[in-house]
Amino acid sequence: MAGTVEQKLASQGITLPEPTSPVANYVGFVRTGNLLFVSGQVCFGADGKLIAKGKLGAGVTLEQGVAAAQGCAINLLAQIKAALGDLDKVVRVVRLGGFINSAPDFLDGPKVLNGASDLMVAAFGDKGRHARTTVGVASLPADAAVEVEGIFEVS
Amino acid sequence: MAGTVEQKLASQGITLPEPTSPVANYVGFVRTGNLLFVSGQVCFGADGKLIAKGKLGAGVTLEQGVAAAQGCAINLLAQIKAALGDLDKVVRVVRLGGFINSAPDFLDGPKVLNGASDLMVAAFGDKGRHARTTVGVASLPADAAVEVEGIFEVS
Amino acid sequence: MAGTVEQKLASQGITLPEPTSPVANYVGFVRTGNLLFVSGQVCFGADGKLIAKGKLGAGVTLEQGVAAAQGCAINLLAQIKAALGDLDKVVRVVRLGGFINSAPDFLDGPKVLNGASDLMVAAFGDKGRHARTTVGVASLPADAAVEVEGIFEVS
Repeated sequence: MAGTVEQKLASQGITLPEPTSPVANYVGFVRTGNLLFVSGQVCFGADGKLIAKGKLGAGVTLEQGVAAAQGCAINLLAQIKAALGDLDKVVRVVRLGGFINSAPDFLDGPKVLNGASDLMVAAFGDKGRHARTTVGVASLPADAAVEVEGIFEVS
Repeated sequence: MAGTVEQKLASQGITLPEPTSPVANYVGFVRTGNLLFVSGQVCFGADGKLIAKGKLGAGVTLEQGVAAAQGCAINLLAQIKAALGDLDKVVRVVRLGGFINSAPDFLDGPKVLNGASDLMVAAFGDKGRHARTTVGVASLPADAAVEVEGIFEVS
Repeated sequence: MAGTVEQKLASQGITLPEPTSPVANYVGFVRTGNLLFVSGQVCFGADGKLIAKGKLGAGVTLEQGVAAAQGCAINLLAQIKAALGDLDKVVRVVRLGGFINSAPDFLDGPKVLNGASDLMVAAFGDKGRHARTTVGVASLPADAAVEVEGIFEVS
């Protein structure tokens, strides 16, 4: 039974995938007290393929980057649901860390990461507004265009 | 009415700018419990221009980088004041994350980030000593030379 | 007197070095409540030399990178021991942030960081499983191949 937040997302055509389970000695999330730390999510789509592959500023367009960042955010939500059972238990999105796979002269990381920030507000409203940090990195796992991690206050 | 910390900074010629207000679905800071997470601040100066633009190791000097990191730290303080009303409510600077816009062969990120670390101790004394992580990144928003984020324990 | 965790590590031939003391206005760790934030640790070995120097994908092999990540993890443990006196006080490894000094086409950061993740589970068992984020960065301090930071829930 999906909660209010997940129903709101569904009304916008967004459904949550199964969260990826790391095949290693780390996990998708850890809760400590009322904080949920979610592992960096790369931009795999619901079909298991990367939404965008390669570097912004060297083949990947801004529009593709925004879609990739949105996909990372959806994957964060899938991890939250796995952790809590219900997205309605999110009290506040505290922080997103956005890593943009960037050519050295790509300067529009914040526009890319808006794809993730907008999804958080679409899901949670004002509780979705968060602190964030955006940087352009030299490479990302699997050549993903975007990776986003998150910290969430939960009940 | 400025508190003790802000007066100490003023005596060193450092005044706080208006914090930047993001024009997007994220915010400058989020408080959860006694922790304040502040968004990554790039090195805009009080005049609204970047203190240093471009890459360390490719045009930006170490001295310029240090000044840029100090500017990031001042912007963090401006966000804290906006969050708490008074810098005196900072119990401890917990962590700084420093991202240095770097040519691939630039190795002196820690010297650059000292510009931010020193400012924290100038402001808060021993309470300003913090854990930190310094990395060299491929690009930063607006081609800023330095970006610094922070976590603060507050009362 | 070493606790259980440290004895288990010793039985695997892993001993903790003296933690490095930063010669600057930052520190190796800060505790706030039950969370311990540990500064980014580069891959210095017990002999004070880098376990691997340079970039993955440009001279440093995957095997060397894994060893370097393990070294970073050992340095994190040394900081925890300095903070708490005993590794047995770790309740949970919450999060590792792994920064891989990467050529722009190096995509196997997660395999590298497994060197750190595996060490945490070797030390703490299931309590060692953590959220993590892996990114490839343009440069690291001292040209270290790997840097890892950590957040730990402690008693």
